[in-house]
Amino acid sequence: MSDEKALTLLIGGARSGKSAYAEQLVTDYAAPWTYIATAQAYDEEMGERIAHHRARRGQGWSTLDAPLDLAGALDAVPAGRPLMIDCLTLWLTNHMLAGHDVDAESARLADVLRHPRGPWFVVSNEVGQGIVPENELARRFRDTAGRLNQQVASVADTVLMMVAGLPLRVK
Amino acid sequence: MSDEKALTLLIGGARSGKSAYAEQLVTDYAAPWTYIATAQAYDEEMGERIAHHRARRGQGWSTLDAPLDLAGALDAVPAGRPLMIDCLTLWLTNHMLAGHDVDAESARLADVLRHPRGPWFVVSNEVGQGIVPENELARRFRDTAGRLNQQVASVADTVLMMVAGLPLRVK
Amino acid sequence: MSDEKALTLLIGGARSGKSAYAEQLVTDYAAPWTYIATAQAYDEEMGERIAHHRARRGQGWSTLDAPLDLAGALDAVPAGRPLMIDCLTLWLTNHMLAGHDVDAESARLADVLRHPRGPWFVVSNEVGQGIVPENELARRFRDTAGRLNQQVASVADTVLMMVAGLPLRVK
Repeated sequence: MSDEKALTLLIGGARSGKSAYAEQLVTDYAAPWTYIATAQAYDEEMGERIAHHRARRGQGWSTLDAPLDLAGALDAVPAGRPLMIDCLTLWLTNHMLAGHDVDAESARLADVLRHPRGPWFVVSNEVGQGIVPENELARRFRDTAGRLNQQVASVADTVLMMVAGLPLRVK
Repeated sequence: MSDEKALTLLIGGARSGKSAYAEQLVTDYAAPWTYIATAQAYDEEMGERIAHHRARRGQGWSTLDAPLDLAGALDAVPAGRPLMIDCLTLWLTNHMLAGHDVDAESARLADVLRHPRGPWFVVSNEVGQGIVPENELARRFRDTAGRLNQQVASVADTVLMMVAGLPLRVK
Repeated sequence: MSDEKALTLLIGGARSGKSAYAEQLVTDYAAPWTYIATAQAYDEEMGERIAHHRARRGQGWSTLDAPLDLAGALDAVPAGRPLMIDCLTLWLTNHMLAGHDVDAESARLADVLRHPRGPWFVVSNEVGQGIVPENELARRFRDTAGRLNQQVASVADTVLMMVAGLPLRVK
């Protein structure tokens, strides 16, 4: 439990160490900790990876699965409890694949994150620094993900960009 | 009007908030402001987007279209006038599609930007931090855009990297 | 020769100026300098590019080719000699194409880099900040390159991220 109410956004590329670093920041607080997972087990391989990650985190952690209803999952976590969301980009993918209005969902989520009820850490991907994708869906996803990252960053107290496992403070 | 003569480069990925932040920096100066647009309306949809952006900027702004002749457009702006160029990457694309010598054009532009005649803000894309593109033209574009960004950064007084709508000072 | 023993990692996108900046940092020390090249001349064009780069570096530099055995090349360099490795990403590509165990090779390399015997500079690419590649091999490469960058960054004394030719200190 902690008196601190603050939102930290960790943004980075693939394998930039953002999840591991977020875990470390969460566990600087006293247990118990909550891990909100947005990954969906589309197949057996993915299911095994998720189980593997859950086992790695070990004692002190409880896991909530929230592939779509992140606001609901956040509501279910007691005030003061340190938590991390891993990750926004997968959550956005799930909504996009479900055909939902992603901009409305993003705005709704940013509203919830504006008032953290404990030390909250959110992991997201930077996906906009490569060449323009040829695939139209990929372009649309890139735009939506970029807008979501901007919205969350604007309500965050701290924004870290992860580079090769190291944090660079942006806000 | 302003006595300040300085060049600021804003570099960032897709939807990193670079244009909106540049607009904000320009309007910190007294109006009128000049917006130099490099986008070309290849089709109706693009034409509507451009008209939409122009309407959004509103009073105090005048717009110059310069899909190819950026040096000429800059020459046409009175000294001391705050301006922004949005963006270098589209300008480079236009030259590439027109079959021009892009390295010569880049060098010529960097020469003009070396001597800003007011508070000038230039927006450009980072496109080199993804995986190597399979498409040969995309690889060539990525290399050229990277070299152009380096040239403009070397003559800029300030370089900002935009991450999720937030500026990170690089120079 | 130098008494300094320190590892610097320069990470950046394509055409971010990382090799040129590393060369500059190396030549701040007294000559002679060693350039460890990991590029492999798969064809004539590549062979010409390599020869061109070698000619550009000029006097004071000696070049070692190490497309696969980087640890061996580092062993062959006298203690105190300023050197640069250009670049890790190509070295990883060579191992991947050769069907080697890239994670084992990465761990072995990180062990050697943990104990630099002079001012050592290592160049690597950021490849994880674009959209998820559709190609499975590209995804695997991206993950492996990200893990390697993290490993090297964790043993480095200094980590610089290159943006448009300018260094941003991360560590």
